[in-house]
Amino acid sequence: MAHTSASVGALLSHVRTGRARSRADLVALTGASRNTVSARVDQLIAANLLEEGGRGGSTGGRPPTLLQFNSRAGYVLAVDLGVTSVDVAVTDLSAQILATLGHPIDIADGPVPVLAEVDRLAHKVLAEAGLSPADVWAVGVGVPGPVEFSTGRPSHPPIMPGWHDYPIPTAFRGYGCPVYVDNDVNVMALGEMGVGGSVQDVLVVKVGTGIGCGVIVDGRVYRGAQGSAGDIGHIYVAQPEGRTVVCRCGNENCLEAIAGGGALLRDGLAGGLPVSTTRQVVQLAAQGDGPALELVRNAGRTIGTVLAALVNFFNPHRIVMTGGVAQAGAPLLAGIREAVYGRSMPLAARSLEITVSDAPDLSGRVGAALMAIEEYLDEDSVEALAR
Amino acid sequence: MAHTSASVGALLSHVRTGRARSRADLVALTGASRNTVSARVDQLIAANLLEEGGRGGSTGGRPPTLLQFNSRAGYVLAVDLGVTSVDVAVTDLSAQILATLGHPIDIADGPVPVLAEVDRLAHKVLAEAGLSPADVWAVGVGVPGPVEFSTGRPSHPPIMPGWHDYPIPTAFRGYGCPVYVDNDVNVMALGEMGVGGSVQDVLVVKVGTGIGCGVIVDGRVYRGAQGSAGDIGHIYVAQPEGRTVVCRCGNENCLEAIAGGGALLRDGLAGGLPVSTTRQVVQLAAQGDGPALELVRNAGRTIGTVLAALVNFFNPHRIVMTGGVAQAGAPLLAGIREAVYGRSMPLAARSLEITVSDAPDLSGRVGAALMAIEEYLDEDSVEALAR
Repeated sequence: MAHTSASVGALLSHVRTGRARSRADLVALTGASRNTVSARVDQLIAANLLEEGGRGGSTGGRPPTLLQFNSRAGYVLAVDLGVTSVDVAVTDLSAQILATLGHPIDIADGPVPVLAEVDRLAHKVLAEAGLSPADVWAVGVGVPGPVEFSTGRPSHPPIMPGWHDYPIPTAFRGYGCPVYVDNDVNVMALGEMGVGGSVQDVLVVKVGTGIGCGVIVDGRVYRGAQGSAGDIGHIYVAQPEGRTVVCRCGNENCLEAIAGGGALLRDGLAGGLPVSTTRQVVQLAAQGDGPALELVRNAGRTIGTVLAALVNFFNPHRIVMTGGVAQAGAPLLAGIREAVYGRSMPLAARSLEITVSDAPDLSGRVGAALMAIEEYLDEDSVEALAR
Repeated sequence: MAHTSASVGALLSHVRTGRARSRADLVALTGASRNTVSARVDQLIAANLLEEGGRGGSTGGRPPTLLQFNSRAGYVLAVDLGVTSVDVAVTDLSAQILATLGHPIDIADGPVPVLAEVDRLAHKVLAEAGLSPADVWAVGVGVPGPVEFSTGRPSHPPIMPGWHDYPIPTAFRGYGCPVYVDNDVNVMALGEMGVGGSVQDVLVVKVGTGIGCGVIVDGRVYRGAQGSAGDIGHIYVAQPEGRTVVCRCGNENCLEAIAGGGALLRDGLAGGLPVSTTRQVVQLAAQGDGPALELVRNAGRTIGTVLAALVNFFNPHRIVMTGGVAQAGAPLLAGIREAVYGRSMPLAARSLEITVSDAPDLSGRVGAALMAIEEYLDEDSVEALAR
């Protein structure tokens, strides 16, 4: 078995995610000496991050004292920023939501008024949970565009006018704690994985106005060379009979120009459906309206042709569909599965699961909380806490 | 900084790959105590895996004693098995080739005669290097088909008739050491990364008879859920004017049916080129023959459309082209670059390097050696050596 780090942060992470339940488990996982592990566990107990509780089953000798993560040692703020609304939650260190509030916004109003609204909501949710700003250990923010993760600045976000290069973390200066910002798809992917995740390779595909993909390798967000991994909305899709659709990016026949939410509305209107929003097209399809069903299934087929290629390349354990268009459910999945199972290699498709998110509304907030928790409870900050 | 494991194997790996040059470096990298690191380094020195040599530059105090990996502590056999030839090498623990021999074979003769030939070659290279079978610590084998890595058995390999489920490691029983088997593309990808690799995300694309891709995430081979990651040869490629090409897999318009080595020969013959092998088409193109050039450039464009999608999804630092058709060089690269830079997102394409392998003939052997070295010098076996 490959051993892992035995740093204070790593030991905490093993208990927090359920990989270890005792000092003996930690020794086995890390290969560190019993003395080293015990000394570090004592530090974590003194810092109120770990607690002792009960005894495990005996395997012959004295049954081990069980260790538990104290998920109420601190709290985090989770912000799920969308194009037309924002949701703010306060959670404990297990990403359990204690209070949450949402409000309509217009992202195009720019960072100053939007982030002032976020701050107002944050103070309200803290009050509702009986907490104060001083109880906040970290802030996690998901935004609908590309972000330079190390600085928390959006990078030429196409649907966030006025936000390019704006230092989002400064808006949370008042909390005096670290702030982590990432694009909404990576954040939702973390939310879909849950606490502790699993060491799986997963694609979380969001179909909303645009189309993007969170890429999970071995349970962690994969970002690639410039942090743009998962940017599948502008992959070229060949169209029958030389049909050409110009994308808002300027290129022709991008996946999202053919199968995204905007495309559904455009094609619905062109086909005479009584709709004025993408949501209405999705609702019609969910109600079984024939032409709406066909539109959604066709979008699924187109998305499926791209996913079929990615399944051959990436060989994921599972694919989770999320975002507004994914709420259509069955007809979208039917189209996707038809294309993926029809065109992927049998070995890669054999045990591939393709599902719709159970809680698409929640995964943005849970993911933002998990990002903040996982980044904050990394080696160095925990070492400082445990000192 | 995130700390890493401080196991004996991890400490050795840090020195072997050049990440650490002293005990102080190891303490900084792992966060383990100076005593723990020193005790484990002493074990590694006693086991002849590390050596002390010279003093490093002083940063104020006493200059540190430098540590060196003893790459001649043991040797490995590296086997690069192809469809029509096999190359066997003996290398030291830095994948430096000490002796190597190749021989034509026909993979379709099946495992027993082919592996007997490999064994004959292995004894000859060992003798040439002045070594005996007892000096061999591990064996690495690359084969032209899918392999279940944990057992070393090919899994329904399309171009290795008679090899399905054959336990390749048993053929090397006489060496009494671990044997690691993987598909040739993963092995070549390791070879392209070199000793210690780099923590980059890289695609190594082999264009031979078939087309496959080694996927490197953070310097390590990424395999996916069933180990079939990188299987890009059967990704569907839309063809102009509804042209249909049936692939040997039974599906239509697979990438390799349109742009692989077999397709080049087929299209060359159809166009009246004076050729009877793919290699001759590639040579004609390299000599500047117009029609051959156009064929190779078109193959590059087709491969490029698939790579453009993968660049958006995977955002690699670089792409390395290898295999027989890659020897065409410039015209193939021109076609690939045209498609990739034309259809990838600017952020992902900005600093992407696309190159042809410097040593395509060697990377199979070097990669097989590196696979054996890295797998063997993992935690448990080094702990046993250092006991």
